[in-house]
Amino acid sequence: MNLSSIKFDEKGLIPAIVQDARTKKVLTLAYMNEESLKKTLEIGETVFYSRSRQEIWHKGETSGNTQKVIDIHVDCDQDALVVFVDPKGPACHTGAESCFGAGASDLSEAEKSGKTSYGDI
Amino acid sequence: MNLSSIKFDEKGLIPAIVQDARTKKVLTLAYMNEESLKKTLEIGETVFYSRSRQEIWHKGETSGNTQKVIDIHVDCDQDALVVFVDPKGPACHTGAESCFGAGASDLSEAEKSGKTSYGDI
Repeated sequence: MNLSSIKFDEKGLIPAIVQDARTKKVLTLAYMNEESLKKTLEIGETVFYSRSRQEIWHKGETSGNTQKVIDIHVDCDQDALVVFVDPKGPACHTGAESCFGAGASDLSEAEKSGKTSYGDI
Repeated sequence: MNLSSIKFDEKGLIPAIVQDARTKKVLTLAYMNEESLKKTLEIGETVFYSRSRQEIWHKGETSGNTQKVIDIHVDCDQDALVVFVDPKGPACHTGAESCFGAGASDLSEAEKSGKTSYGDI
Protein backbone atom coordinates (compact mmCIF):
# COMPACT_ATOMS: atom_id res chain seq x y z
CA MET A 1 0.00 0.00 0.00
CA ASN A 2 1.18 3.50 -0.67
CA LEU A 3 0.22 7.11 -0.45
CA SER A 4 -1.84 6.83 -3.64
CA SER A 5 -4.13 4.30 -1.91
CA ILE A 6 -5.37 6.91 0.52
CA LYS A 7 -8.96 7.82 -0.20
CA PHE A 8 -9.61 11.53 0.05
CA ASP A 9 -13.28 12.53 0.10
CA GLU A 10 -15.13 14.54 -2.51
CA LYS A 11 -13.53 17.68 -1.11
CA GLY A 12 -10.06 16.14 -1.32
CA LEU A 13 -9.83 15.71 2.45
CA ILE A 14 -9.21 12.88 4.90
CA PRO A 15 -10.05 13.10 8.63
CA ALA A 16 -6.98 12.82 10.86
CA ILE A 17 -7.50 11.80 14.48
CA VAL A 18 -4.56 13.26 16.40
CA GLN A 19 -3.67 11.16 19.43
CA ASP A 20 -0.97 11.75 22.04
CA ALA A 21 1.43 8.84 21.48
CA ARG A 22 2.30 8.69 25.19
CA THR A 23 -0.96 9.36 27.04
CA LYS A 24 -3.23 8.02 24.24
CA LYS A 25 -5.49 11.02 24.74
CA VAL A 26 -7.30 12.09 21.59
CA LEU A 27 -6.23 15.68 21.05
CA THR A 28 -8.19 16.83 18.06
CA LEU A 29 -9.90 15.80 14.87
CA ALA A 30 -8.41 17.70 11.96
CA TYR A 31 -8.39 17.27 8.20
CA MET A 32 -5.60 16.79 5.69
CA ASN A 33 -5.53 17.10 1.94
CA GLU A 34 -2.90 15.32 -0.12
CA GLU A 35 -0.54 18.29 0.02
CA SER A 36 -0.75 18.60 3.80
CA LEU A 37 -0.28 14.84 4.28
CA LYS A 38 2.83 14.92 2.11
CA LYS A 39 4.10 17.95 4.00
CA THR A 40 3.43 16.16 7.30
CA LEU A 41 5.52 13.20 6.12
CA GLU A 42 8.23 15.52 4.85
CA ILE A 43 8.72 17.66 7.96
CA GLY A 44 7.65 15.13 10.61
CA GLU A 45 5.18 17.55 12.20
CA THR A 46 1.43 17.79 11.69
CA VAL A 47 0.27 19.90 8.78
CA PHE A 48 -3.47 20.14 8.26
CA TYR A 49 -5.92 21.70 5.86
CA SER A 50 -8.07 24.37 7.46
CA ARG A 51 -11.60 24.01 6.13
CA SER A 52 -12.60 27.45 7.42
CA ARG A 53 -9.57 29.28 6.06
CA GLN A 54 -9.26 26.96 3.08
CA GLU A 55 -5.51 26.74 3.36
CA ILE A 56 -2.66 24.49 4.46
CA TRP A 57 -1.93 24.97 8.13
CA HIS A 58 1.27 23.90 9.87
CA LYS A 59 0.04 23.29 13.42
CA GLY A 60 2.03 25.42 15.86
CA GLU A 61 3.62 27.60 13.20
CA THR A 62 2.58 30.73 15.06
CA SER A 63 1.84 29.39 18.56
CA GLY A 64 4.87 27.12 18.81
CA ASN A 65 2.57 24.26 19.80
CA THR A 66 3.81 21.89 17.12
CA GLN A 67 3.11 18.16 17.11
CA LYS A 68 5.99 15.83 16.30
CA VAL A 69 4.67 12.86 14.32
CA ILE A 70 5.58 9.51 15.86
CA ASP A 71 3.47 7.23 13.69
CA ILE A 72 0.50 7.27 11.35
CA HIS A 73 -2.05 4.48 11.01
CA VAL A 74 -4.52 4.22 8.15
CA ASP A 75 -7.86 2.53 8.69
CA CYS A 76 -9.18 -0.57 6.95
CA ASP A 77 -10.85 1.34 4.14
CA GLN A 78 -8.11 3.95 3.78
CA ASP A 79 -10.34 6.92 4.45
CA ALA A 80 -9.25 7.95 7.96
CA LEU A 81 -5.95 8.40 9.77
CA VAL A 82 -4.75 8.22 13.34
CA VAL A 83 -1.69 10.42 13.75
CA PHE A 84 0.29 9.62 16.88
CA VAL A 85 2.14 12.70 18.08
CA ASP A 86 4.43 14.11 20.70
CA PRO A 87 2.80 17.50 21.33
CA LYS A 88 4.97 20.49 22.20
CA GLY A 89 2.05 22.30 23.80
CA PRO A 90 -1.75 22.45 23.93
CA ALA A 91 -3.58 21.06 20.91
CA CYS A 92 -6.64 23.26 21.29
CA HIS A 93 -6.93 26.92 20.34
CA THR A 94 -8.57 27.44 23.75
CA GLY A 95 -5.28 26.55 25.42
CA ALA A 96 -6.57 23.18 26.58
CA GLU A 97 -4.42 20.09 26.14
CA SER A 98 -7.16 18.47 24.05
CA CYS A 99 -10.06 19.81 22.03
CA PHE A 100 -12.10 17.05 23.69
CA GLY A 101 -11.18 18.03 27.24
CA ALA A 102 -13.61 17.14 30.00
CA GLY A 103 -15.90 20.05 30.64
CA ALA A 104 -15.49 21.40 27.12
CA SER A 105 -19.09 20.51 26.52
CA ASP A 106 -21.83 18.63 28.19
CA LEU A 107 -25.11 17.54 26.77
CA SER A 108 -26.97 18.19 29.96
CA GLU A 109 -30.43 17.84 28.42
CA ALA A 110 -29.62 14.34 27.32
CA GLU A 111 -28.35 13.58 30.77
CA LYS A 112 -31.44 15.08 32.34
CA SER A 113 -33.63 12.88 30.18
CA GLY A 114 -32.76 10.16 32.62
CA LYS A 115 -32.33 7.57 29.92
CA THR A 116 -28.58 7.53 30.39
CA SER A 117 -26.08 9.45 32.44
CA TYR A 118 -22.63 10.36 31.22
CA GLY A 119 -20.05 12.57 32.84
CA ASP A 120 -19.54 14.77 29.84
CA ILE A 121 -22.72 14.43 27.86
CA MET B 1 -24.87 23.11 26.48
CA ASN B 2 -27.25 20.57 25.11
CA LEU B 3 -27.89 18.21 22.28
CA SER B 4 -29.16 21.02 20.10
CA SER B 5 -25.72 22.67 20.28
CA ILE B 6 -24.15 19.80 18.37
CA LYS B 7 -23.16 20.91 14.90
CA PHE B 8 -23.99 18.37 12.26
CA ASP B 9 -22.40 18.97 8.87
CA GLU B 10 -24.18 19.78 5.61
CA LYS B 11 -25.09 16.10 5.32
CA GLY B 12 -26.52 16.05 8.84
CA LEU B 13 -23.58 14.03 10.17
CA ILE B 14 -20.97 14.37 12.91
CA PRO B 15 -17.76 12.29 13.01
CA ALA B 16 -17.54 10.04 16.08
CA ILE B 17 -14.12 8.80 17.15
CA VAL B 18 -14.72 5.53 18.98
CA GLN B 19 -12.09 4.90 21.65
CA ASP B 20 -11.72 1.92 23.98
CA ALA B 21 -12.32 3.44 27.41
CA ARG B 22 -9.89 1.05 29.06
CA THR B 23 -7.00 0.64 26.60
CA LYS B 24 -7.46 4.10 24.99
CA LYS B 25 -7.00 2.52 21.59
CA VAL B 26 -8.87 4.29 18.82
CA LEU B 27 -11.18 1.64 17.38
CA THR B 28 -12.87 3.34 14.48
CA LEU B 29 -14.06 6.60 13.01
CA ALA B 30 -17.75 6.43 12.33
CA TYR B 31 -20.50 8.95 11.72
CA MET B 32 -23.71 9.78 13.54
CA ASN B 33 -26.73 11.76 12.52
CA GLU B 34 -29.05 13.28 15.10
CA GLU B 35 -31.27 10.20 15.18
CA SER B 36 -28.36 7.80 15.74
CA LEU B 37 -26.85 10.03 18.43
CA LYS B 38 -30.20 10.13 20.25
CA LYS B 39 -30.52 6.36 19.88
CA THR B 40 -26.97 5.93 21.22
CA LEU B 41 -27.88 7.96 24.30
CA GLU B 42 -31.14 6.07 24.69
CA ILE B 43 -29.79 2.51 24.54
CA GLY B 44 -26.27 3.13 25.86
CA GLU B 45 -24.64 1.38 22.91
CA THR B 46 -23.15 2.88 19.77
CA VAL B 47 -25.55 3.54 16.93
CA PHE B 48 -24.10 5.06 13.79
CA TYR B 49 -25.22 6.29 10.41
CA SER B 50 -23.85 4.22 7.55
CA ARG B 51 -22.88 6.59 4.75
CA SER B 52 -22.65 3.74 2.23
CA ARG B 53 -25.96 2.11 3.13
CA GLN B 54 -27.56 5.44 4.06
CA GLU B 55 -29.22 4.02 7.14
CA ILE B 56 -29.04 3.91 10.91
CA TRP B 57 -26.77 1.11 12.06
CA HIS B 58 -26.71 -0.33 15.58
CA LYS B 59 -23.12 -1.56 15.83
CA GLY B 60 -23.07 -5.27 16.66
CA GLU B 61 -26.77 -5.82 15.97
CA THR B 62 -25.95 -8.80 13.74
CA SER B 63 -22.38 -9.65 14.81
CA GLY B 64 -22.94 -9.27 18.53
CA ASN B 65 -19.92 -6.96 18.70
CA THR B 66 -21.74 -4.15 20.41
CA GLN B 67 -20.02 -1.24 22.11
CA LYS B 68 -21.28 -0.13 25.52
CA VAL B 69 -21.02 3.64 25.80
CA ILE B 70 -19.07 4.79 28.85
CA ASP B 71 -18.80 8.48 28.07
CA ILE B 72 -19.05 10.94 25.21
CA HIS B 73 -16.94 14.07 24.84
CA VAL B 74 -17.74 16.86 22.41
CA ASP B 75 -14.95 18.98 20.98
CA CYS B 76 -14.44 22.72 21.41
CA ASP B 77 -16.45 23.66 18.34
CA GLN B 78 -19.11 20.99 18.81
CA ASP B 79 -18.52 19.31 15.46
CA ALA B 80 -16.78 16.09 16.52
CA LEU B 81 -17.30 13.46 19.23
CA VAL B 82 -15.11 11.02 21.12
CA VAL B 83 -17.22 8.08 22.23
CA PHE B 84 -15.56 6.05 24.99
CA VAL B 85 -16.74 2.46 24.85
CA ASP B 86 -16.44 -0.96 26.39
CA PRO B 87 -16.35 -3.15 23.27
CA LYS B 88 -17.94 -6.61 23.38
CA GLY B 89 -15.83 -7.76 20.43
CA PRO B 90 -13.80 -6.57 17.46
CA ALA B 91 -14.65 -3.10 16.16
CA CYS B 92 -13.57 -3.77 12.60
CA HIS B 93 -15.50 -5.73 9.97
CA THR B 94 -12.20 -7.50 9.22
CA GLY B 95 -12.32 -9.05 12.68
CA ALA B 96 -9.51 -6.85 13.95
CA GLU B 97 -9.83 -5.19 17.34
CA SER B 98 -9.41 -1.78 15.71
CA CYS B 99 -9.94 -0.47 12.20
CA PHE B 100 -6.58 1.25 12.67
CA GLY B 101 -4.68 -1.90 13.65
CA ALA B 102 -0.97 -2.00 12.96
CA GLY B 103 -0.37 -3.59 9.59
CA ALA B 104 -3.80 -2.59 8.29
CA SER B 105 -2.02 -0.29 5.92
CA ASP B 106 1.40 1.10 5.36
CA LEU B 107 2.41 3.94 3.17
CA SER B 108 5.62 2.30 2.12
CA GLU B 109 6.38 4.78 -0.64
CA ALA B 110 6.40 7.63 1.82
CA GLU B 111 8.64 5.64 4.08
CA LYS B 112 10.95 4.81 1.21
CA SER B 113 11.31 8.49 0.44
CA GLY B 114 13.75 8.55 3.31
CA LYS B 115 12.49 11.87 4.61
CA THR B 116 10.74 10.23 7.53
CA SER B 117 10.25 6.69 8.72
CA TYR B 118 7.10 5.48 10.42
CA GLY B 119 6.15 2.00 11.44
CA ASP B 120 2.79 1.99 9.75
CA ILE B 121 3.07 4.63 7.06
